[in-house]
Amino acid sequence: MQQIIESKAREFAQSAHVSVLATVSPEGQARARVMENARVDDDFTIWYVTDANSPKMQDIGHQPHVTVVMSNYQVKRDIRYYGNISVVTDQAIKDSFWKDAYQVYFKAGKTDPAYVILKFVPDSIEYRDIHKYGTKPQKVR
Amino acid sequence: MQQIIESKAREFAQSAHVSVLATVSPEGQARARVMENARVDDDFTIWYVTDANSPKMQDIGHQPHVTVVMSNYQVKRDIRYYGNISVVTDQAIKDSFWKDAYQVYFKAGKTDPAYVILKFVPDSIEYRDIHKYGTKPQKVR
Repeated sequence: MQQIIESKAREFAQSAHVSVLATVSPEGQARARVMENARVDDDFTIWYVTDANSPKMQDIGHQPHVTVVMSNYQVKRDIRYYGNISVVTDQAIKDSFWKDAYQVYFKAGKTDPAYVILKFVPDSIEYRDIHKYGTKPQKVR
Repeated sequence: MQQIIESKAREFAQSAHVSVLATVSPEGQARARVMENARVDDDFTIWYVTDANSPKMQDIGHQPHVTVVMSNYQVKRDIRYYGNISVVTDQAIKDSFWKDAYQVYFKAGKTDPAYVILKFVPDSIEYRDIHKYGTKPQKVR
């Protein structure tokens, strides 16, 4: 049962295109934004591309423990992760995420200081499939 | 232009079925969950039904200034609100939101102490329609 839930949760996460990333501002207020998922790994590590000048960078610097939510109302499924998010400094990893379409945002390309990759590693994961399991979250990790 | 954006944002908000409500826990960590929208008023006030024993109640008691996000990846639109959330104590309002389907969660019905209505009043609203306006949020309020 646990393996089925984990496998369904992974499938859901990897088919989701966006997340809501919830952070805490330095002033102690809740902040959240819709983010494109650059990649979701089999171990549920989530990668994002962002701008070094976006307000979320201050939030993450202040409190790196964040919450991520992916949801799809049509199928009544969602997944919620708690974990730590960090800025990737390895240029080889940054290169691997680069797309030509990013050039419009990051004029200097892959080495533009504004071009930032964020890596989120969940320590806790809850999956809901309301049609199958009701409203109670199923613990994946 | 501003009126068109506000009207499109209202239409989007009122057609959304769920929100992500982002809060701060008493420990200062980001928390977020998918919530069904009980109602979205023309002035963007959002109403939710919840359980008095849910962890979000502690978060809200600690920090009532929260962020709400509604998004629809298919149409590439989202809306983000900042504002205050409060617990409604007026029984007439609570009665007006009651549905028979809630009985399964709140055994004592409309007057069950666990049956809680939350009212969220945004002080700031940002709307995105990426196909129409690109990734830059449009200020509604």
